[in-house]
Amino acid sequence: MSKNLTPKPSRRAFLKGAATVAATGAGATIARAGDPAITELQPWMITRGDGVATRPYGYPANQESNVVRRAIPWLTADDISSVSFTPLHQLNGTITPNGLCFERHHSGIAEIEPDIHRLMINGLVETPLVFTVADLMRFPREDRVYFLECAANSGMEWRGPQMNSVQFTHGMIHNVMYTGIPLRTLLHAAGVKTAGKWVLAEGADAAKMARSIPMEKALDDCLVAFAMNGESLRPEQGYPLRLVVPGFEGAMWIKWLRRLEVGDQPWHLREEANRYTDLLANGQSRRFTFEMDAKSVITSPSPEAPIAHGPGPTVLTGIAWSGRGTIPRVDVTLDGGINWHMARMSGPSTDRALHRFYFEFDWDGSALILQSRAHDSTGYIQPTKDALRDIRGSNSVYHNNGIQTWAVENTGAVSNVEIS
Amino acid sequence: MSKNLTPKPSRRAFLKGAATVAATGAGATIARAGDPAITELQPWMITRGDGVATRPYGYPANQESNVVRRAIPWLTADDISSVSFTPLHQLNGTITPNGLCFERHHSGIAEIEPDIHRLMINGLVETPLVFTVADLMRFPREDRVYFLECAANSGMEWRGPQMNSVQFTHGMIHNVMYTGIPLRTLLHAAGVKTAGKWVLAEGADAAKMARSIPMEKALDDCLVAFAMNGESLRPEQGYPLRLVVPGFEGAMWIKWLRRLEVGDQPWHLREEANRYTDLLANGQSRRFTFEMDAKSVITSPSPEAPIAHGPGPTVLTGIAWSGRGTIPRVDVTLDGGINWHMARMSGPSTDRALHRFYFEFDWDGSALILQSRAHDSTGYIQPTKDALRDIRGSNSVYHNNGIQTWAVENTGAVSNVEIS
Repeated sequence: MSKNLTPKPSRRAFLKGAATVAATGAGATIARAGDPAITELQPWMITRGDGVATRPYGYPANQESNVVRRAIPWLTADDISSVSFTPLHQLNGTITPNGLCFERHHSGIAEIEPDIHRLMINGLVETPLVFTVADLMRFPREDRVYFLECAANSGMEWRGPQMNSVQFTHGMIHNVMYTGIPLRTLLHAAGVKTAGKWVLAEGADAAKMARSIPMEKALDDCLVAFAMNGESLRPEQGYPLRLVVPGFEGAMWIKWLRRLEVGDQPWHLREEANRYTDLLANGQSRRFTFEMDAKSVITSPSPEAPIAHGPGPTVLTGIAWSGRGTIPRVDVTLDGGINWHMARMSGPSTDRALHRFYFEFDWDGSALILQSRAHDSTGYIQPTKDALRDIRGSNSVYHNNGIQTWAVENTGAVSNVEIS
Repeated sequence: MSKNLTPKPSRRAFLKGAATVAATGAGATIARAGDPAITELQPWMITRGDGVATRPYGYPANQESNVVRRAIPWLTADDISSVSFTPLHQLNGTITPNGLCFERHHSGIAEIEPDIHRLMINGLVETPLVFTVADLMRFPREDRVYFLECAANSGMEWRGPQMNSVQFTHGMIHNVMYTGIPLRTLLHAAGVKTAGKWVLAEGADAAKMARSIPMEKALDDCLVAFAMNGESLRPEQGYPLRLVVPGFEGAMWIKWLRRLEVGDQPWHLREEANRYTDLLANGQSRRFTFEMDAKSVITSPSPEAPIAHGPGPTVLTGIAWSGRGTIPRVDVTLDGGINWHMARMSGPSTDRALHRFYFEFDWDGSALILQSRAHDSTGYIQPTKDALRDIRGSNSVYHNNGIQTWAVENTGAVSNVEIS
């Protein structure tokens, strides 16, 4: 049919026309005039491809094989208690595909047989309960999109720029739609005793990863989730059950959830006393820091996403989030904070979920100093790293939500820097 | 650490307590008392698992290997011009994971080399343009969630219940977050001439699948998308470029998009004249039916998701959508329309996107006749199949948005039926 629509003479005429195109705004300056690739029939235009359901469960194009989670070999003593990072520079929108959600395990991926797995509620409850996964499917469910950020995200950057990579400075975050049962429904079924003020959530992995959750939070918006982005949780994300603790640090989102114990005080386990606490400048530590403060980062341009196209129309984009609400506003600077511009927010804005921002500009080819600064719905504004260090010192690990700076050279190359 | 928290004596005491649990509302009637599975250490609780990034791009648990797209071998002459269906009965929430989005190809999956691929704009424009994929990355982007439904979804059901399967009656739909460039931006860059009233969108597959889009729609909310759910489009969904035509029938969402031609009238190609048209009862056909009317279906219980747990608390759930707006309300009946109940809507409600509804009830073990009925934001109410047949006859193929009926037997088995 195409032949009737674009006979060869008119196609040739088109190509001549395109070859002499004059600039008409940003669009035409971007457009490629008279491109020989359009005149050639490509193999996929004349060859029938694979049929339906040759891939019952689909996977990305071969050309996208570099879009992967990556670990840092030297970061941890072994890879079973370690981290892989989300490739933020290669992602768009706000939903993270399940296969690219960062991983943090304390004893490797627990490979659970869901038919044998049980969830137990015990401790200060009227009626201790044990559920199979099928039992839980009989309770009312909720569907909500939330970000999950590890408290150690950007942790290496406390001592100045360390990683020339947005995947490694900010990639311990993902954002998916969860389906699960409100935790309060299950606690109500068991009947929490008056003395019950905390809930211990414990995983079925070999590390028995466990954390103390305040009862107020447990009865508010936590979910016992069984699905992410429509399908069952992935093994590395807690299959078959994970606790969702909206806005709180990722280590509390216990994977492979097997037990909820109600108690009258927090347990002060290793992973909430020796780890995941915030050292202050005076040498003391905060007891708990549950909520993740507002944060943002420019994902492109970034070290792994340099400006490859030369001067002219350029898209700057990034992500922003807050453990305390939504992100109504992100500011962006191209000159290290001399001038700030309000970024354009795109996509749905929902509570404690990732937000996407854009700032389009005409790059003149000169060096740039890029920063983004998130405002959350409580009025809180993302601080500088120096402002954080004034309170926390420079020997911290967790909860680094400081403003990230990228330096763009006139070649378009981008590196991780700090300015004062 | 768990040993300190739940020493063996108290665990035994817990199990005894659980074994004698009295029913305290729906929760406790569901809960499993004194389950030996909880007392045994499982292999995954004592063995360290795979480390991070052993799966740079993750995949579902082995136990979920039956959650797949499926084709119907006898439906089409071959599998390169055919359909695979989304497993709706196995999905939750509203986001469809990329690997499970249904497929409809007219000449198989075009395997495109993105560096060679070009998008051309020609016809009634001031400046014909040719873009590489990299060129397009320099235009402002949008991020939006939309459903895509094939016009032939439920097409086999015009002649009464045919498929005992929600995957095959309703599985030609998916719902993802797209990132793309507004089509109007590209048309404005080329400069649409006054006479330009229609846009031909053409694919780079061997079928040269093409459709005519009204200019009003092209300048409204269409996107030239390059990403779905955060990552690049999948090959079977149009990698590297697909047209997004919100609310309109799926065949217009041209995959492997290579050309946009502006014209003064529709092209009346095979796939919009001989196919994808609606036969009426009087033997005439409608010229075009672009918008997908409001529709809903119960995904569980359904033929592939019977009630397996016997009487008691039961979760009914399903999906609803409209090509004309949002779905503020879905009604559900358990008795074939004698009594209707307002379902509970869950998750974000956005324009022309999938919605999830729930209705929880206490099943008494008797036979049920299940239906759902969507109301959209224009006030339109999903019709019965008979009401559609009064206008369209029973020899149609496309645009069947009639109310679906499932019969539940006292065994919990579910089948596709119609009632009058």
